[in-house]
Amino acid sequence: MAVIGEGDLAPDDLRWASARELGRLAVEAGFRVATGGLDGVMAAASRGAAEAHAYREGDVIGVLPSYDRATANEWVDIVIPSGLGIARNVVLMALADVVVAIGGGAGTLSEIAIAWQLGRPVVAVQGLGWAGRLGGQAVDARRTDVVASVGTATEAVARALDVCG
Amino acid sequence: MAVIGEGDLAPDDLRWASARELGRLAVEAGFRVATGGLDGVMAAASRGAAEAHAYREGDVIGVLPSYDRATANEWVDIVIPSGLGIARNVVLMALADVVVAIGGGAGTLSEIAIAWQLGRPVVAVQGLGWAGRLGGQAVDARRTDVVASVGTATEAVARALDVCG
Amino acid sequence: MAVIGEGDLAPDDLRWASARELGRLAVEAGFRVATGGLDGVMAAASRGAAEAHAYREGDVIGVLPSYDRATANEWVDIVIPSGLGIARNVVLMALADVVVAIGGGAGTLSEIAIAWQLGRPVVAVQGLGWAGRLGGQAVDARRTDVVASVGTATEAVARALDVCG
Amino acid sequence: MAVIGEGDLAPDDLRWASARELGRLAVEAGFRVATGGLDGVMAAASRGAAEAHAYREGDVIGVLPSYDRATANEWVDIVIPSGLGIARNVVLMALADVVVAIGGGAGTLSEIAIAWQLGRPVVAVQGLGWAGRLGGQAVDARRTDVVASVGTATEAVARALDVCG
Repeated sequence: MAVIGEGDLAPDDLRWASARELGRLAVEAGFRVATGGLDGVMAAASRGAAEAHAYREGDVIGVLPSYDRATANEWVDIVIPSGLGIARNVVLMALADVVVAIGGGAGTLSEIAIAWQLGRPVVAVQGLGWAGRLGGQAVDARRTDVVASVGTATEAVARALDVCG
Repeated sequence: MAVIGEGDLAPDDLRWASARELGRLAVEAGFRVATGGLDGVMAAASRGAAEAHAYREGDVIGVLPSYDRATANEWVDIVIPSGLGIARNVVLMALADVVVAIGGGAGTLSEIAIAWQLGRPVVAVQGLGWAGRLGGQAVDARRTDVVASVGTATEAVARALDVCG
Repeated sequence: MAVIGEGDLAPDDLRWASARELGRLAVEAGFRVATGGLDGVMAAASRGAAEAHAYREGDVIGVLPSYDRATANEWVDIVIPSGLGIARNVVLMALADVVVAIGGGAGTLSEIAIAWQLGRPVVAVQGLGWAGRLGGQAVDARRTDVVASVGTATEAVARALDVCG
Repeated sequence: MAVIGEGDLAPDDLRWASARELGRLAVEAGFRVATGGLDGVMAAASRGAAEAHAYREGDVIGVLPSYDRATANEWVDIVIPSGLGIARNVVLMALADVVVAIGGGAGTLSEIAIAWQLGRPVVAVQGLGWAGRLGGQAVDARRTDVVASVGTATEAVARALDVCG
């Protein structure tokens, strides 16, 4: 599961708590958690994943834009310092079996649109940002499903399990 | 100028005519025209560019997803068969001084979001698709401008000249 | 550890056996094994890794050129279907802490040269191909080390442990 | 034509003069000149291209590793600030119809190896560096040709015209 969302959240932002819970529940449910490896939602989801009871080393993947491993947040096990800049978002979406978005600005929006093109199921947590705006909608007509809209991290993981069948 | 929009338009679609006019006017105004090099809006804008009076060989650039030059539409002068798949969209946005969107599905949406991250001015032609939906809005709060909303190809080029100083 | 080498070896090729042994010993020594995810040396190293006693699910990473997960060999745990074509070689070298080459044609040569630019230690198993030709040499003057030359998989892993300190 | 070689040559290096002459002759012969857009051989070839009598604006392409247009040398007309880091070398090789190497360290070596994989004809100017070492040789057995070895810029362009037939 890829978890996407803003990189500059304050740790007291509700989305930070939501992403951390999402990371934890994802690993409890048997997913690995992949993110862009940096801060905000990425760090929160990585931290949650690493705190899960079911966590095993290797469950947290971070695909960095730069070649600099030191930019990864401390909970990433498998650092992929791609050096690809923004194009690393395509690699992240491609490696995901399902994508869960929390909040999100232009980076998250681009990732949702890329995931849609690649046929990846997308789940959006209701709230601020592009996840909130796109939940329940189709990005375009090429697919018959929609960006799933869920209210909580628990529902997000349940939906992810459904679509990953 | 990068021109973006759907790749599977019928030639009698109004967006095809609009993209062709846009390509022509862009070259008359002194721009090169870069696209994803394939069909639909990409082909229309490339054709229009090649039909401009001011056209010089080299004015039409196509950044292809595959390594196969033969997939470029016939009006592309400088074929960049990137082999990068969807990540070629990032290269296209990066090389543009300004981006003009006509219609558009998930691919166009991802490009607008990437252009926004890269600080490229974005101009959207009113109408269907993501260009129509995003015109007049900010993609997120990192920039103080908005996706410019224009009604015609003529206005799009005028706006592009404005923002490119 | 990234293991690189030819993708079209016959399973009875000595390099296949060597790569399998290398994958196994790498995991026994505590490394993850990352490859280009396809056949030949990539499959052999992945298989060896998966057969190690110390193997844990997640130890075998494959960075594919296409978006098609089904092209990964059966021993890859973490499939990264990058869609980047040949540029996936850069991602593979970037994620490696150390690179071990066995045999190798132009693809392997490009990877060694990229690893060199990225400052990754490179270990070459003596024998045919570019690994054999470059072992003991500097690729250029920017680094003071050389491509380490070793005779066996056992020595390769020992050297990898040394340089990853 | 892509011209590749070291990025940190002194302007009084013989390879600088050779690359400048090569850029000039390439444009006189009807080629566009594409490079990595930075300094050394890249700047020299770009400058030579821009000084050709047959030069038209648009003949000099630079594919930069960063998103920063300001890193391009002053003779580049079409700046492609790819943001792809070292992976921009793959884009450069892919867009070339023929590749000419002068001197060269690990970057040039990786480019020759990538061009070989992509089926691009490669011409090497005799002398120092990887161009000198690989001239006259096959990179691997997948192709029946060799890296052409030439003594001068004039011969390089003649050979490039031959192979681009």
